[in-house]
Amino acid sequence: MTKRLFDIDPWLIRTHTLAKDDIRLQESLTAIGNGYMGLRGNFEEGYSGDSLRGTYYGGIWFPDKTRVGWWKNGYPEYFGKAINGPDFISMPLTINNVAIDLAKTPFHDFDLRLDMHNGVLHREFVVDLPESVQVKLSFDRFMSNAVKQAAMIKMTATVLSGQADIRVTSRLDSNVHNEDSNYEEMFWQELGQHADSNGASTLSVTTKPNPFGVPQFSLTLGMQNVLKSPAPETRTAEESSLLVQEDLAWHLATGESSTLTKYVTVVSSRDVPTEKQVSAINDLLKEVMDQGYDALLAAQNRIWAERWQMADVLIDGDDAAQQGIRYNVFQLFMTYYGDDARLNIGPKGFTGEKYGGATYWDTEAYIVPMYLSVTPSRVVRQLLEYRYNQLAGAYHNAQQLDLKGALFPMVTFDGIESHNEWEITFEEIHRNGAIAHAIAQYTDYTGDHSYVDDHGMAVLVGISRFWADRVFFSKRKGMYMIHGVTGPNEYENNVNNNWYTNTMATWTLRYTLKMLPEATAERLAELAVTDEEKAHWQDIIDRMYYPHDDELGIFVQNDTFLDKDIRSASTIPANQRPINQHWSWDRILRSPFIKQADVLQGIYFLNDEYTQEQKERNFDFYEPLTVHESSLSASIHAILAAELGKEEKAVDLYQRTARLDLDNYNNDTDDGLHITSMSGSWLAIVQGFAGMRQHADKLSFKPFLPKQWTKYQFAVNYRDRIIQITVTAAGTELRLLKGAALTVWLYDQPVALAAAD
Amino acid sequence: MTKRLFDIDPWLIRTHTLAKDDIRLQESLTAIGNGYMGLRGNFEEGYSGDSLRGTYYGGIWFPDKTRVGWWKNGYPEYFGKAINGPDFISMPLTINNVAIDLAKTPFHDFDLRLDMHNGVLHREFVVDLPESVQVKLSFDRFMSNAVKQAAMIKMTATVLSGQADIRVTSRLDSNVHNEDSNYEEMFWQELGQHADSNGASTLSVTTKPNPFGVPQFSLTLGMQNVLKSPAPETRTAEESSLLVQEDLAWHLATGESSTLTKYVTVVSSRDVPTEKQVSAINDLLKEVMDQGYDALLAAQNRIWAERWQMADVLIDGDDAAQQGIRYNVFQLFMTYYGDDARLNIGPKGFTGEKYGGATYWDTEAYIVPMYLSVTPSRVVRQLLEYRYNQLAGAYHNAQQLDLKGALFPMVTFDGIESHNEWEITFEEIHRNGAIAHAIAQYTDYTGDHSYVDDHGMAVLVGISRFWADRVFFSKRKGMYMIHGVTGPNEYENNVNNNWYTNTMATWTLRYTLKMLPEATAERLAELAVTDEEKAHWQDIIDRMYYPHDDELGIFVQNDTFLDKDIRSASTIPANQRPINQHWSWDRILRSPFIKQADVLQGIYFLNDEYTQEQKERNFDFYEPLTVHESSLSASIHAILAAELGKEEKAVDLYQRTARLDLDNYNNDTDDGLHITSMSGSWLAIVQGFAGMRQHADKLSFKPFLPKQWTKYQFAVNYRDRIIQITVTAAGTELRLLKGAALTVWLYDQPVALAAAD
Repeated sequence: MTKRLFDIDPWLIRTHTLAKDDIRLQESLTAIGNGYMGLRGNFEEGYSGDSLRGTYYGGIWFPDKTRVGWWKNGYPEYFGKAINGPDFISMPLTINNVAIDLAKTPFHDFDLRLDMHNGVLHREFVVDLPESVQVKLSFDRFMSNAVKQAAMIKMTATVLSGQADIRVTSRLDSNVHNEDSNYEEMFWQELGQHADSNGASTLSVTTKPNPFGVPQFSLTLGMQNVLKSPAPETRTAEESSLLVQEDLAWHLATGESSTLTKYVTVVSSRDVPTEKQVSAINDLLKEVMDQGYDALLAAQNRIWAERWQMADVLIDGDDAAQQGIRYNVFQLFMTYYGDDARLNIGPKGFTGEKYGGATYWDTEAYIVPMYLSVTPSRVVRQLLEYRYNQLAGAYHNAQQLDLKGALFPMVTFDGIESHNEWEITFEEIHRNGAIAHAIAQYTDYTGDHSYVDDHGMAVLVGISRFWADRVFFSKRKGMYMIHGVTGPNEYENNVNNNWYTNTMATWTLRYTLKMLPEATAERLAELAVTDEEKAHWQDIIDRMYYPHDDELGIFVQNDTFLDKDIRSASTIPANQRPINQHWSWDRILRSPFIKQADVLQGIYFLNDEYTQEQKERNFDFYEPLTVHESSLSASIHAILAAELGKEEKAVDLYQRTARLDLDNYNNDTDDGLHITSMSGSWLAIVQGFAGMRQHADKLSFKPFLPKQWTKYQFAVNYRDRIIQITVTAAGTELRLLKGAALTVWLYDQPVALAAAD
Repeated sequence: MTKRLFDIDPWLIRTHTLAKDDIRLQESLTAIGNGYMGLRGNFEEGYSGDSLRGTYYGGIWFPDKTRVGWWKNGYPEYFGKAINGPDFISMPLTINNVAIDLAKTPFHDFDLRLDMHNGVLHREFVVDLPESVQVKLSFDRFMSNAVKQAAMIKMTATVLSGQADIRVTSRLDSNVHNEDSNYEEMFWQELGQHADSNGASTLSVTTKPNPFGVPQFSLTLGMQNVLKSPAPETRTAEESSLLVQEDLAWHLATGESSTLTKYVTVVSSRDVPTEKQVSAINDLLKEVMDQGYDALLAAQNRIWAERWQMADVLIDGDDAAQQGIRYNVFQLFMTYYGDDARLNIGPKGFTGEKYGGATYWDTEAYIVPMYLSVTPSRVVRQLLEYRYNQLAGAYHNAQQLDLKGALFPMVTFDGIESHNEWEITFEEIHRNGAIAHAIAQYTDYTGDHSYVDDHGMAVLVGISRFWADRVFFSKRKGMYMIHGVTGPNEYENNVNNNWYTNTMATWTLRYTLKMLPEATAERLAELAVTDEEKAHWQDIIDRMYYPHDDELGIFVQNDTFLDKDIRSASTIPANQRPINQHWSWDRILRSPFIKQADVLQGIYFLNDEYTQEQKERNFDFYEPLTVHESSLSASIHAILAAELGKEEKAVDLYQRTARLDLDNYNNDTDDGLHITSMSGSWLAIVQGFAGMRQHADKLSFKPFLPKQWTKYQFAVNYRDRIIQITVTAAGTELRLLKGAALTVWLYDQPVALAAAD
């Protein structure tokens, strides 16, 4: 059921076919971004066929009216969504008065390629026009990493035969639509505009008012269009509602060629007050035009080369896998590289509307473990600061549920919960555990205690206070319990004593008690954790109830899980998979089938706390029940399978995550890429195949080489070093590319690595 | 926290105070209807203060776009709601060019009374106008029970001092709003209109189109205004959008009086094709005007006298209770008296928008047990036919959940589920049990097997097939279970093995197997229940799992209920009651507090199957946990308390239900009356205080007299007899008012009743 639109290539996402029947999928896969903004692979000249046109700006969102059947106390008033923003690539174009539209205009020699070296999207094709006129058009665009507020588009027209009157209408256009709207309403209002055919054109817009006290966002875009040889014959500028445009017309004869470069800059009220935006835009435009397209592209190449040096994974013997892992790293970095602690990583990044562009627990659970190794440590620290900065919101969220402490939101932009399904919003509280655990991961991996000792401690105490209030003491069992939760397996709701949740709750309390003595004096005074409080936490740790089954030797997912009609997911007919597209929700809930790692997620997180036998028994019980219908599932299972020596299983599970989007594995990439699960293939290779673990200041590896591969090589950033790991049939080679000498562990044996040259 | 707006009176709902701060509550309490249509106690002349204006027409509804955060497979596409319909009482009025508006115009001698003898709403007051003009205005209105399509309004103006130029604008107005709309949209479109100042004015409207294939409803209203002495000086008619009106102006001198009678008739596409509605309306108008207001009122009085003869409950010694019980019976009969098998009883009847005017399981659970005794048996039979006629929809609903058999909807107009909250729609499947049980109740009480042997059997088999597919066999426990349900206690969701649900499921299978041999040959052939199927049903009956606790000697509400922090509802601080208005949903779900009878509902339904000790243990355990925050709760508990000799408790619980609306006990009667729970006070008196039971062809009583009362008397319709029961301190007197001799049981002793004279 997979679908592959692009050729296998180590560094390119390339095709010579316009996927007319899968245009949304093609658009998703050719999305680009720079952490500040991003957009789907829509066409500059427009496209009259099916298309999901979308441009997204980090941190720009709208609080929309909550949709609900019956209101429940505790629901947030609004649900937030990152809205589709002004379209700046728009450049409708006619040649000899024929509108160029690949849905209608005859064309050939189509070539579309996204270069993972630098994030440049290139597209070219030759249009066949009346009277045998043939014109080759090519478009290049990239979102600058050197000047994050800038985007560049370069269009080249070359006349292959005949004469061509070319007319381009270059636009900044905020007449955009959201598919995810309640009543097809518009979200943008105009603030001002200036169309100029000599200099910069600007468009200022604002999100419409809302009744929830969420600030409106204003945004100003600027553009300047530069036509090289020949100069345009006519050049006019025009303003209309939510739109500025510049019209350029010129003539080319056979063999002649010309290039139009569109420089775009964007600032928002997140950084620049509304009244200063136009002048900021003009300054930025001047800056990027002074540098010019080629210099900005060169800077882009340098930045990406540096990123790849730390993060590239080389795979020999499996070109599809090679492309897959690079694509995942590449898209993640285009979404987030730690430039702004107010931003985070939405499940779809800048590639679609689904999940509303908000922050989920995916970040802490799946991104942090990878980013610690492949980016400078400041990047993960920014992700941790994001939560610290939203601590007030987390206290608010707990209070909404009549609870003490801090409950980080399931879905948010600003720390306030902005999603309402009671079984998720109110009950999927295990998210709080992952957010605490990310602090420990950062601290253990980097050895840098400064975050936990200050900001992190406030987060840990807030979360611990939440757990301490959320548990209750069951007199009948004489133990603490947590009723009414949804675990990571969202195919069960409102269960009692989800093993994972109970485990992460006491883990948080333990870790908080352990780290508390280290906290800064100032922070300790501020947090004022009393002895009674600490004693209560310890009592919860000592007397927490964890469902388990001695006969099976497993931790039990929740209280009555084993009563279910337990059977392997392999008994589900293939034509009923994925079950979430074929079965009623009711049937799914009652089934024994598991969406994603639940008990096993806990064993993954707290890997050093369980014996090999415990891991094996639980894996052998739960994995067969798991349908892996979350894109976050397979990688965790691959890692554990690898650890348990189930190499074939590990490779099999890895396959699901390596090319999830490139092969449209879940048949839903047309909505956008699965950004937050893109870390999965990296985790499967590094923590799975290479068996990398970091615990108690020891970095260790237990690699194996998948049968299909002849070699794989990756680097990890670890405590100011870059360590390169190469695995071949001959064995494993470890080498420091950067930094001071270090001892690491290979198959439980110490290996001294010499300092890099 | 109660609020009483109306005086205590045995037959009147009367006040001399306009409740400006509680106008919605006053409007709810003065709602009237005739089973075909009904309306809130809004004012004819209009009211510029806060108000919920509403006119509702039985069976006229709109399928609105489903509101939901995240879609779940199995959800219905739309949610239905009975929409506010054309307003026919509207008669804005000016005197000497001053608009009469009780929110602004000075007035005195206000008198508002609803007469429970006949359903006539009377209102009068004297307005004080400039230049010492005083005019007394009085309004009477009723919805005719003789001609259900007709409503009558009579306005009398009497000049007490000065001169009065009176101008009335009598309207049919479909420019009406629904508070329960998604986006303040309108639901009515105009089809045609005719304004006539000599004869009838008509307005034809239709519900707007919907994309769900639900037929649009058209409605035509007609009116004719008759002014007695003097004739109007001017009389003009006017049409505007969704509105026709007639303007009448006349002059009155001091001491003069005049009466304007507005005759209104209504037909809809439920009965008359759109193109024939205008002529049908004109015929109806002619008919009612030929009869005239007084004759229709006389007919009204006769009809109600007959109803009261069968249903009246007399209470001596407690005037508030007397008024309460009559009010409940009165409002129920204004909502439903079995005239149309396509209609049912919505939780708010014709008195408000809440719950969308749809049919719930309330009908079978709470209305049927009362209606069997207080109405002719054809009335309940109509309610049963309603479900039979919707059997195809019930099969559809089950299929939506991938299940076999018939699942009657939680919320419906036409048999198709039209509500979407997964924990209710998908999980509150116990409703199916109550629908089956109502068939047994009817059959046992009336002794009439003709329904069950034919139509009823199709319903029972459909429901049994549903249960047989919905249970599963737990290999671990070696028993059948039902996972993932919501019991009658909606303060727990998605629980496993709700005792009540499991019990009603096997009860259905037992009853179906028992009655199957009786079924008509034709029905048997059609249903084709196989021997394997019957054996499977028997296996489920034999091996169903029912949670119980031997130590406590109770049935356990669901699998993990006893793990909860069990404590009495009396520990909840008074200022946190009701908890559904003060606690987060999350907190409610985790609490041990019970919304309404759950285990005890089962003991109520299957009363003869449990021992006194079982009843006592369960009552003593569950009642203290119950917050009675459903208006359906207290009566069931009152009945069981009475049976267990807990007379004070029974009376105490009865109090909550007797004047629930009249004293605004739950602080939400402003939204509308709690129509379906109005049976509760009757049940508490008859099945509770008088201990009436009907089982195995024996009708029995075990009455006690509440301390506060000196006497109570009621009648029940039983197998073509009317039996009158009178309970005083001296004892119980049983008497046949109608029908053949009969032996009944009093305190377990047979009592032979002689035939009525």
